[in-house]
Amino acid sequence: MDQEVAPESATAAPDAAFAAWWAERRSAARLSVTPVPFRELPHWSCTRDGDLVHDSGRFFTVSGMRVRGPGDPGDPGGPGTSGRDQPVIVQPEIGVLGLLLKHLDGEPHVLLQAKAEPGNIDGIQLSPTVQATRSNYTRVHRGGATRHLEHFTGPGRGRVLVDSLQSEQGAWFWRKHNRNMVVEPVGEVAEHPDFRWIALRTVRRLLGVDHLVNMDTRSVLGCLHPEPAPTTSTQPAAAADPPRLRALTSWLIDAKQHCPWYARPVPLGDVAGWTRTETEIADDAGRSFRIIAVRVEAGTREVRQWAQPLLAPRRPGLAVFLCRGTAGVRRVLVRARTEPGLADLVELGPTVQWSDDTGPALPEEAGPFDGVALTADPARVRFDAELSEEGGRFYRAATRYRIIEADDTLASSDSPPPADYRWLTVRQLQALAARGHHVNVQARSLLACLASLP
Amino acid sequence: MDQEVAPESATAAPDAAFAAWWAERRSAARLSVTPVPFRELPHWSCTRDGDLVHDSGRFFTVSGMRVRGPGDPGDPGGPGTSGRDQPVIVQPEIGVLGLLLKHLDGEPHVLLQAKAEPGNIDGIQLSPTVQATRSNYTRVHRGGATRHLEHFTGPGRGRVLVDSLQSEQGAWFWRKHNRNMVVEPVGEVAEHPDFRWIALRTVRRLLGVDHLVNMDTRSVLGCLHPEPAPTTSTQPAAAADPPRLRALTSWLIDAKQHCPWYARPVPLGDVAGWTRTETEIADDAGRSFRIIAVRVEAGTREVRQWAQPLLAPRRPGLAVFLCRGTAGVRRVLVRARTEPGLADLVELGPTVQWSDDTGPALPEEAGPFDGVALTADPARVRFDAELSEEGGRFYRAATRYRIIEADDTLASSDSPPPADYRWLTVRQLQALAARGHHVNVQARSLLACLASLP
Repeated sequence: MDQEVAPESATAAPDAAFAAWWAERRSAARLSVTPVPFRELPHWSCTRDGDLVHDSGRFFTVSGMRVRGPGDPGDPGGPGTSGRDQPVIVQPEIGVLGLLLKHLDGEPHVLLQAKAEPGNIDGIQLSPTVQATRSNYTRVHRGGATRHLEHFTGPGRGRVLVDSLQSEQGAWFWRKHNRNMVVEPVGEVAEHPDFRWIALRTVRRLLGVDHLVNMDTRSVLGCLHPEPAPTTSTQPAAAADPPRLRALTSWLIDAKQHCPWYARPVPLGDVAGWTRTETEIADDAGRSFRIIAVRVEAGTREVRQWAQPLLAPRRPGLAVFLCRGTAGVRRVLVRARTEPGLADLVELGPTVQWSDDTGPALPEEAGPFDGVALTADPARVRFDAELSEEGGRFYRAATRYRIIEADDTLASSDSPPPADYRWLTVRQLQALAARGHHVNVQARSLLACLASLP
Repeated sequence: MDQEVAPESATAAPDAAFAAWWAERRSAARLSVTPVPFRELPHWSCTRDGDLVHDSGRFFTVSGMRVRGPGDPGDPGGPGTSGRDQPVIVQPEIGVLGLLLKHLDGEPHVLLQAKAEPGNIDGIQLSPTVQATRSNYTRVHRGGATRHLEHFTGPGRGRVLVDSLQSEQGAWFWRKHNRNMVVEPVGEVAEHPDFRWIALRTVRRLLGVDHLVNMDTRSVLGCLHPEPAPTTSTQPAAAADPPRLRALTSWLIDAKQHCPWYARPVPLGDVAGWTRTETEIADDAGRSFRIIAVRVEAGTREVRQWAQPLLAPRRPGLAVFLCRGTAGVRRVLVRARTEPGLADLVELGPTVQWSDDTGPALPEEAGPFDGVALTADPARVRFDAELSEEGGRFYRAATRYRIIEADDTLASSDSPPPADYRWLTVRQLQALAARGHHVNVQARSLLACLASLP
């Protein structure tokens, strides 16, 4: 968990130049973020039902959801013991997270952007070439045109390598999805000081630096399948064979069909157990996230000044893949994981995923592998970094991502995992991720990190 | 559109036996359906918000949705010119529509059920082996165990040929989906007078009989891909090649991303332009469907007597595929079609789809091929039958399904169709249907009917 961008070996010489560019961009960013009371949010208002909405009706809304679980009576409107109410971010429109990829000197490079977001822990982060909500590209909140968008939409679009609709945090968003794309551009790509072509293997190494590669970049990289450079693809093609994928798909549909959780949208004013003050909306127990408001003054972002709500977690989360095998055929222990804000409630997720890194904070987060998630044994820890979640909606939201080698007992095929867990090859998980709405955002981040392992 | 089951040729001799079985089942069904006032619905009540809910909180709910279209201002809560409010059926749980398939005398047969539903036009219809809501199989409304369900779920499940989550009517349901399955059973399948093994080619011929093969059977048959019998599969395998499918998927995601429609759930009490009387909920213009209540007394269904709301359209709908080519490589003109109740708002649908067979009743239904949909030219009409929609939720809902040969102008590759239409091979459409949530229920019905063409 090194905050510095380390100097490079001879095989990765461009990285000194990267460090210089990054330092220069960081000093140019000048993003100032100030928490303010809700009444000082221009263009935002509170509906009769208590929802926090933008005047355009677009952008996003802070509303509520009601979650009922296996301990609750059938009536989803009735009282529950395992269920809860909570605020949730509603953003029904489909945004574009797009990465341009091309080969330079025979090596795949992606065009990344030094982008500041109000919730970022470290000012700027490495963002995809394009990171645009529909409100951005139709200019609802009066920003400039989205740079490079023409490579991803319309007749000038390049060769599409990845194109799928992917969910984001099901604990915080109501059924959000974004279009994740990787495109090989045709023709010239305009240069701009905020953008830089970086070798894919450099990006993968940079994933190990805390809070550097942003969530959207990781999400798109997690969908990149198969590997663009044949030399990095060492798994046999048969690992993703269709009959096995069909069986995995049936297993996931089983989990969706039998999911004992249920969620429905409710107005923010009806959310029980949460209280709104002038400056925050918080749960009465003080254990969950808060909704706050911030005023932002930007140097490099497309509008100079704006204000918006943000979701502010109290602590970092945790996302862990147990793995076994080697780079040849590496397997990870995937869970069919319930998150109430997901469209189908269930997607494939990490072995362990907590919204609070000290333990399972929500009943649906608990599982039998919780105990091994925090191991400090260096012989087992393959990857360990604290990375940021989406800084445009979340305030300093971080997740500790870990990849841990399973011990022989767990990895043995003699002791199959519980019914909602499966050992998948990385290639199988990539193939399912490519379909969209199969692999959750934390698992896609971990897929990107897996590619950084030796 | 022949109501009779025609006598069979020598190669299809079992069909006389089918006709005898069908006549016998019909006389045994004795289903009596009586419209009643809403207050005479035991176990149903009206919430504070006006929603019509079952006491269990399960089964289904009649609630509302607010639809806003391209002519409306950004604010989805504000007034609109192309938008509307309407009631909608909410049924978030995933049901199972399952078909058992096995080869008898070398020919694929499916196990169909003579099943009565309260909304059926003709009493009983040919239904899948299993047609169970979660409320059925967890026995929320106190019916018996669902026969044959063990072949589709749990450890005794047979070989899974089809397994996908599929949407249903996006004009009437809020984000409903069911699990569509085809399974080759392992071990014995118990016999029962309501069930019968019928050759797949016989079922396909029976699709041409009005109101005989029910919507759920058609939906599952539309997902059956590839053909189980090699002799009926004459299309080259390359027709469903992955690069072409990726391009089609990108085109569909384009349509979802740029869809100018927006829908959100609202309580039934907030639905503007609709009025509730003692016996119906109807739009003030008298042009759309009505919500009614019925009391049902059944002979063969799993509970003897119950009452429930139903959605009652005023007229049959229309669903048309324009086609070209021959059975070798037949292509159909597919539309990326907006239906506000669909999870992603857009799925692949027929060339023309109206909720009223006299013309496009809703603005999103209008299109440039409306004029050719009603042609009576027998030289162009390949299929024409009036078939029923789901009789468990809809009261006498019918759709006229037509497959029409495009004339040379339309079929010419010199004149490509508008951006939201594409010519797909039947095999490409089948491959996309198999993924789930790509092909709408009317198009899946037409896919089943296409397989009946010579």
